[in-house]
Amino acid sequence: LYDFTAEPGNNELTVKEGEILTVTNQEWDDDSDDGKSTGGYGGSQVEEGGTMQRAGGHSTMKLSLNKFPGFSKTPNPEVYLLTKHIAKGDERLPIYTGEVGPVWLYPQTQLDCVVADPKKGSKMYGLKSYIEYQVTPNTTNRPVNHRYKHFDWLYERLVEKFACALPIPCLPDKQVTGRFEEEFIKMRMERLQGWMSRMCRHPVISNSEVFQLFLNYRDEKEWKLGKRRAEKDEIVGVKIFSNIDPELPELDPAQQKYEMYSQFTRSMDNSVKELLAVGHLHWKRCTGPLQKEYRQIGKAFQNLSSVFNTSAYPRESTLTEALTATGKTYEEIAEIVAEQPKKDLHFLMETNLEYKGLLGCFPDTITVHKAAIDKVKEADHVVVMNKISQQDKLIMEKNLSTMSYALQAEMNHFHSNRIYDYNRLMQFYLEEQVKFYETIAEKLKKTLGQYTTM
Amino acid sequence: LYDFTAEPGNNELTVKEGEILTVTNQEWDDDSDDGKSTGGYGGSQVEEGGTMQRAGGHSTMKLSLNKFPGFSKTPNPEVYLLTKHIAKGDERLPIYTGEVGPVWLYPQTQLDCVVADPKKGSKMYGLKSYIEYQVTPNTTNRPVNHRYKHFDWLYERLVEKFACALPIPCLPDKQVTGRFEEEFIKMRMERLQGWMSRMCRHPVISNSEVFQLFLNYRDEKEWKLGKRRAEKDEIVGVKIFSNIDPELPELDPAQQKYEMYSQFTRSMDNSVKELLAVGHLHWKRCTGPLQKEYRQIGKAFQNLSSVFNTSAYPRESTLTEALTATGKTYEEIAEIVAEQPKKDLHFLMETNLEYKGLLGCFPDTITVHKAAIDKVKEADHVVVMNKISQQDKLIMEKNLSTMSYALQAEMNHFHSNRIYDYNRLMQFYLEEQVKFYETIAEKLKKTLGQYTTM
Repeated sequence: LYDFTAEPGNNELTVKEGEILTVTNQEWDDDSDDGKSTGGYGGSQVEEGGTMQRAGGHSTMKLSLNKFPGFSKTPNPEVYLLTKHIAKGDERLPIYTGEVGPVWLYPQTQLDCVVADPKKGSKMYGLKSYIEYQVTPNTTNRPVNHRYKHFDWLYERLVEKFACALPIPCLPDKQVTGRFEEEFIKMRMERLQGWMSRMCRHPVISNSEVFQLFLNYRDEKEWKLGKRRAEKDEIVGVKIFSNIDPELPELDPAQQKYEMYSQFTRSMDNSVKELLAVGHLHWKRCTGPLQKEYRQIGKAFQNLSSVFNTSAYPRESTLTEALTATGKTYEEIAEIVAEQPKKDLHFLMETNLEYKGLLGCFPDTITVHKAAIDKVKEADHVVVMNKISQQDKLIMEKNLSTMSYALQAEMNHFHSNRIYDYNRLMQFYLEEQVKFYETIAEKLKKTLGQYTTM
Repeated sequence: LYDFTAEPGNNELTVKEGEILTVTNQEWDDDSDDGKSTGGYGGSQVEEGGTMQRAGGHSTMKLSLNKFPGFSKTPNPEVYLLTKHIAKGDERLPIYTGEVGPVWLYPQTQLDCVVADPKKGSKMYGLKSYIEYQVTPNTTNRPVNHRYKHFDWLYERLVEKFACALPIPCLPDKQVTGRFEEEFIKMRMERLQGWMSRMCRHPVISNSEVFQLFLNYRDEKEWKLGKRRAEKDEIVGVKIFSNIDPELPELDPAQQKYEMYSQFTRSMDNSVKELLAVGHLHWKRCTGPLQKEYRQIGKAFQNLSSVFNTSAYPRESTLTEALTATGKTYEEIAEIVAEQPKKDLHFLMETNLEYKGLLGCFPDTITVHKAAIDKVKEADHVVVMNKISQQDKLIMEKNLSTMSYALQAEMNHFHSNRIYDYNRLMQFYLEEQVKFYETIAEKLKKTLGQYTTM
């Protein structure tokens, strides 16, 4: 927590009675995973891979009996595949046929929340300070307070519980830009808002007990009890599929769409990265060389005007005034150009960064699915070896069908959100771009009016 | 003329009877000072210094008796200063008081000409080819043909005759840009047009016999006779002042404005160079990295659209079509951005290059003037030494007054043209810039219309 050099050997700092310990570098937040970065929209800030590495170490995975060879890192779907499940009332996650195919059950009113009003709090007589955000769900309209580490706790629970079936995008952490504390906090809040809104929009996640606890706890006691309960939740990892109950005919194990999904998410990941890279380049150009160049153009016109002013020629003033105004206009354009990325590119970049994070989770989700398919393919062989019964095999096929429907429902959820997000994004971007070009044209037109036709 | 390596010692190529001489590198123009450059609008292409170096070696300067010490390179004004002049009818160059001070006598109708229709001609059975331009003055509307070397001949005559009193801007030659013959010819023609128009606008130059000959000769014979006559003209160098006849009271030799003029032209020279430098930078950015970047943005949107198209999700087409259109729009913007400098910056650069050339001639013109002032300052001393009479001194003062009026008239001519040129230039530049931003805004607006509000 504090910057000090530990003693060699024991990694501790010995303080003897009577010594005065002066803390010179006080950290403003006690969240340990709170790395700041000043890198802007670099191409490599979202960690590759996604969530499964984090979920990989969880106890569920260790429960796997591993009757099949060759699985070490991927969560083993076997523990789910071999059991006959009847989903219970409260936790049941139905899948219906919608217009676009299998879909999750969406609530009548969509949950959403506002993350706002970051406040500095402190503990330990001011030695530890942290930022607390106010989170207000649209259902209760009653705000709850959360520190970054609470969001991180929620993320950990969601990964444990859902990541085998649903891509859970990383929390914004190391991606955060901003050289100043205020800027950093604002950016983090904006990204936490984006993350929370995405979670709220997901019918499975938003309806889960742990997510509801996070948004609706009434007091410290309820929060602590809820936390303990959530940490003891046993329906985690591949077991989540046992809650899923497709109200649809069983799928033929041979008809799997995962390859198409895998292909799509990989292609989109590449495309999103390309857009981020060119956006990053454009951002740098606008705030760097382009701003500088328009300033120089502005200065050059103003300098010429200053020189003309010294001519002592009697018919000078109309031109010099117009020239000065032109120079100032180009200086204004320089600032408009430099500010523009914040107005349009920012949202485009943020949304694509979010998608980059989300897309990074799909390979893991799809790998679980692929592992299940492979197990079912091997089932006949394993039956022959008398390790499982013919009945087990039918259960496996039924369960694989459930996993397939879950993947399809999730992909349809993803596609629907994607179309909505990118449509909104592009409209917003183009609107701001149109305003940008119109503003400059308007300014130049006004300046042009200052010249007289001779 | 032809590329060959001369024999050591005599710089010749010996061809013996029976040998075959194969010309492998045929030049397309026989103008010897016809250097091409591909450098675009670099900062150092107009040679510094101006015209006087060229005029420096002329016979007039050698006529100087050099009664005063310390002049070697600057044309010596003494030959003019010491003689009493009465300007003759035809060649007389009056100076009047205009609204802005001393001015040349301007003609009722301003002379102008059109340089157009470049044609390839050839001599020596096709071995020598050259470009001939058609020059049509507005007075006769009758075209005459001239090759580049004729323009150069005219330039030499104008420098000899007028450069002590009037800045004669260099002909466009080494500045010419263009990697292709056609582009090169077009650019040279455009610049010859600019140079001719500037010469036509000058009341002293346009009215001179040599300039009239260049525009109005009726046949080869008249041209050749006129050429010979012009080459034998004796009123050249500082003698041109003897034709100048200010109809104004004699000026006090102590009241000289040349320092102000010197300061102004130097400052403007710097300012013009600054504008050229930043313009050059901007040109390169528009046709280089900016074009590339907008193409990349366009490609990124189109790639994303292609990926979306593979989703097999049923509600895809509206977004993908709009996204593709957006991508294509940014590709169009890339081309608009790259073409824009030709539309607006080109004229700004050309005019400033012309002014850079013109401003480079002022130091020499002003130096002649300064030399004359110094001589008159020394006159008292020289009178005491009995080298000149008191009467001579009065003549010198009268002649210096004439030189001063000439410089003032010339500066007023310069200022009047400068205000007109820069006013027109800025209006044109801003008009084109407004069009540029409006065109892009319009294109983006149209694309925005393809998105549906969800």
